[in-house]
Amino acid sequence: MPYRAPVSDFQFLLDHVVGFSDVTATERFAEATPDMTQAILTEAGKMCEEVLAPLNRQGDLHPAYLDNGVVRTSPGFADGYRAIAEGGWIGMSASQEVGGLGLPMSLTTTVNEMIASACLSLQLSPLMTQGQIEALEHHASDEIKDLYIPKMVSGEWNGTMNLTEPQAGSDVGALRTKAEPNGDGTYSITGQKIYISWADNDFTENVCHLVLARLPDGVAGTKGISLFMVPKLIPDADGNPGERNSLRVVSLEHKMGLHGSPTAVMEYAGAKGWLVGAEHGGMAAMFTMMNNARLGVAAQGVGVAEGAYQHALAYAQDRKQGRAGGSGTIIEHADVRRMLTTMKADTYAARAICLMNAVAIDMALATGDAVWEARAAFLTPISKAFGSDVGCEVSATGIQVHGGMGFIEETGAAQYARDVRVATIYEGTNGIQAMDLVARKLMDGGEAAFRLLDEIEQGADAAKATHPELAGAVWQSAENLRETTEWLVAQQDLNERFAGAVPFLRAFARVLGGYVYLKSALAGDASRQRLATFYIKRMLPEHTGLLAHVREGAGDLMSITADDLAA
Amino acid sequence: MPYRAPVSDFQFLLDHVVGFSDVTATERFAEATPDMTQAILTEAGKMCEEVLAPLNRQGDLHPAYLDNGVVRTSPGFADGYRAIAEGGWIGMSASQEVGGLGLPMSLTTTVNEMIASACLSLQLSPLMTQGQIEALEHHASDEIKDLYIPKMVSGEWNGTMNLTEPQAGSDVGALRTKAEPNGDGTYSITGQKIYISWADNDFTENVCHLVLARLPDGVAGTKGISLFMVPKLIPDADGNPGERNSLRVVSLEHKMGLHGSPTAVMEYAGAKGWLVGAEHGGMAAMFTMMNNARLGVAAQGVGVAEGAYQHALAYAQDRKQGRAGGSGTIIEHADVRRMLTTMKADTYAARAICLMNAVAIDMALATGDAVWEARAAFLTPISKAFGSDVGCEVSATGIQVHGGMGFIEETGAAQYARDVRVATIYEGTNGIQAMDLVARKLMDGGEAAFRLLDEIEQGADAAKATHPELAGAVWQSAENLRETTEWLVAQQDLNERFAGAVPFLRAFARVLGGYVYLKSALAGDASRQRLATFYIKRMLPEHTGLLAHVREGAGDLMSITADDLAA
Repeated sequence: MPYRAPVSDFQFLLDHVVGFSDVTATERFAEATPDMTQAILTEAGKMCEEVLAPLNRQGDLHPAYLDNGVVRTSPGFADGYRAIAEGGWIGMSASQEVGGLGLPMSLTTTVNEMIASACLSLQLSPLMTQGQIEALEHHASDEIKDLYIPKMVSGEWNGTMNLTEPQAGSDVGALRTKAEPNGDGTYSITGQKIYISWADNDFTENVCHLVLARLPDGVAGTKGISLFMVPKLIPDADGNPGERNSLRVVSLEHKMGLHGSPTAVMEYAGAKGWLVGAEHGGMAAMFTMMNNARLGVAAQGVGVAEGAYQHALAYAQDRKQGRAGGSGTIIEHADVRRMLTTMKADTYAARAICLMNAVAIDMALATGDAVWEARAAFLTPISKAFGSDVGCEVSATGIQVHGGMGFIEETGAAQYARDVRVATIYEGTNGIQAMDLVARKLMDGGEAAFRLLDEIEQGADAAKATHPELAGAVWQSAENLRETTEWLVAQQDLNERFAGAVPFLRAFARVLGGYVYLKSALAGDASRQRLATFYIKRMLPEHTGLLAHVREGAGDLMSITADDLAA
Repeated sequence: MPYRAPVSDFQFLLDHVVGFSDVTATERFAEATPDMTQAILTEAGKMCEEVLAPLNRQGDLHPAYLDNGVVRTSPGFADGYRAIAEGGWIGMSASQEVGGLGLPMSLTTTVNEMIASACLSLQLSPLMTQGQIEALEHHASDEIKDLYIPKMVSGEWNGTMNLTEPQAGSDVGALRTKAEPNGDGTYSITGQKIYISWADNDFTENVCHLVLARLPDGVAGTKGISLFMVPKLIPDADGNPGERNSLRVVSLEHKMGLHGSPTAVMEYAGAKGWLVGAEHGGMAAMFTMMNNARLGVAAQGVGVAEGAYQHALAYAQDRKQGRAGGSGTIIEHADVRRMLTTMKADTYAARAICLMNAVAIDMALATGDAVWEARAAFLTPISKAFGSDVGCEVSATGIQVHGGMGFIEETGAAQYARDVRVATIYEGTNGIQAMDLVARKLMDGGEAAFRLLDEIEQGADAAKATHPELAGAVWQSAENLRETTEWLVAQQDLNERFAGAVPFLRAFARVLGGYVYLKSALAGDASRQRLATFYIKRMLPEHTGLLAHVREGAGDLMSITADDLAA
């Protein structure tokens, strides 16, 4: 089922919904002209359609495997990776000083989404590298920057993130990997890391591991953690890959999906590493990388949703069945129409939220304005959790549209669902995202949240003249959300917030979606009006049940005992 | 992770919630005494815990495969099947005249659920056989009954359902398989069937295929279809398996899950068959089989939900992480608690709805009362769709509780999700179930629905004295549902109903769940009160958003064009 890049949706969202013109009006991003934007969308879309999409099934059928300590990748992945690198897509948001294109994250997000639609398991590799580039840009010494970033931007080397250990998953502070100073400015890294995506491959000449470890004087918990660059091959004096470092891939995991992406257990046995950022300042650097990666994972979810949607739509347009009118294909059935429209509607809403998030990141960078920074920080957990949830839900519905064929692997519908399943888990589970949203991201007294809600209500007020019904529904949803947000902010006991964190995040995404669709209806053609009507009337009402859940707080939840659960 | 049969939940539901005492008060089911019920739950539970649960992972790791035309089954499945047969569990609801135990479907449903929890892929085989036994009991000649049913009850032979053809999925009427009279009372069956579960195995001495086919004078569509018994080995004069019939397994499918259950493409090349029921009366017989199977699939969904829940709970009780209070395990975190409680709450609600459905089936059979029959018919699509949806949702949440480990196959969490995925599809997709509910099952003007709603409101009224808050919420939800049901019944254009069929079915299940929990709170201990409060306050409110969707009707949905979707 050939993938077709949704270029016109991106263009419409950038032009009319997410405020991309604010970004291109800044000095920093002045180069991102309309022509440039169009060229990027078209070129990246073409690569995804022609080069990457044909690889997707190969990754599932022929997983990466470990061969005498070397990871062998799926057929065609080396070529796919080269195409991504040569297109300049890895470093498109890296600054020009380090060899990147210095383009806005808004555009990188569109490209990342398209690559994820085409071949998620391969896309994870450049995504990890992008995160590492950003962490190095912000925290590494000039020496490390100059040595590593250009090689990663060019795709000659790739980057990985090493956080998790068997006993330390979401609780990174529990990690045990040690870093001992060697006395020459380097460190000796010893420990085991798990869930290392693309820890090795057979198509880049070096692999650069960013590893969290504890120095001898590091205190317990996250405040005693430092970050180290630990390359697979130690660069020689000329910056070329030299001596083999003391690290190895112990094993690869057997996963539910994403078979083309090797997920490794890594062993560091006194491997040579270089400090990145301050001693004991590893978490700050890691958060830079994770925040980038979180928006990246959000785009993965949206990308897979788009792929699964197109796949299901093509099936529904082709599959003849029953006595429905018109073409006689199942798309004429009301329930199939409902499924497809729901898939499309949520994919678009999630995409728009990711782009709003990216615009906020770009504006924060271009203006230094704390208000934009706060908005970017507030939207990141929403993008990540909602984007990945939508990926799972849309791909599940895609299976359903296929009927019996959905359960058969040959169709490819199931692969989307299996592949994307990890997106709700990695880079912080969606539960962690929701807790971050209701705790840390409301520490400003809800200011960032209320600014968003003000904007939505003002937008709805302005739309009432032309779209009274839709505008009224969106305004009311924002007002409902405001009341619950006020209630949340007033809760001092964090468990009162945590108990409803996940439904709150989803309700916020639903209301943001309503705003997105209202703007689309204002600027769009009849087709966009119809989709907006569908979303606002049928999907937006979900928020009331979710908010009811949130308002219950912790009380009856935390009164449920372990014995109750085991009964 | 050892499975523990939820015997006390079954016992409580039968005693206090679903009206099982009405069943045992009938003459037909007088043998189902409390002692007998307890013995059945305990014995079946023991078999599932000790014999079947250890096989589950084997089926996933070592799928059934085709070996020179013979299906080889997963390690241990032959022993598991023998244990099920020897326990008498295959024919427990078959009448005593044909060698069954004549026990209520209410009890069979509990046993089917437990077997599904323990090993879904194996359970599908006896489930298909149960459906066939029931179809034969109602529609076959005495000769066929006497020859086949005792062998199926004993487990010596097994049964399959052959409906689907490549061009005829949900639209059975499009089938092309032909039946030509041989002139000796037998027929010659020719055609290809797909998705045949347990079409062959290496542990029963014969396989009995019930095959839908069209006689030469059969009209197009479902009214021209007849049903045939087509055994793999043709019974000789003594009823022993004799000559090989002209049928074969062409291939087995590669599926997302349920690897232990062989799903075959079957070729019938002039195979000898015997008519079951009237000429051109195949659909009636098939519906008997499908209705039984639909409740069976519902119990599969609940069973997998229970298995996935127990698996996740054990992980959460064991996994130490973070600075949560108490034991230091992740179960102390509010969001993990929310996930587990949601899983448990929905599993219990879906189980209760299945048992309400089974009680209605039993009462219809025991009393011949059309009101019970209508209730059974009304509840069947709700049980099937909600039960299987809950299976998918709970197993997805189970993955989430496991964090990164959920994506790794070794833990088994992913297998639950992959295996149960087909339950929303087979025996009529959940979309088909919902369409059946809002069309055929409302053809009585909504009488069956309104009787249920009356019962809920009366129950809520009676509970207001002791449980004012919970009773009030449940009463209001039933009233909301009543208004929307009235609106649906008034719609003459079926598309107005179909557009919201799926959300309507789910809303109905949500409200039935509220009633189940209210009854549980009235009769149960503090633990059941807490779970009821959680469900009614946090999960029941979902119905309002769903009903809003239903009330939109078809209008804006059917106005969305194929071009809109492809845009």
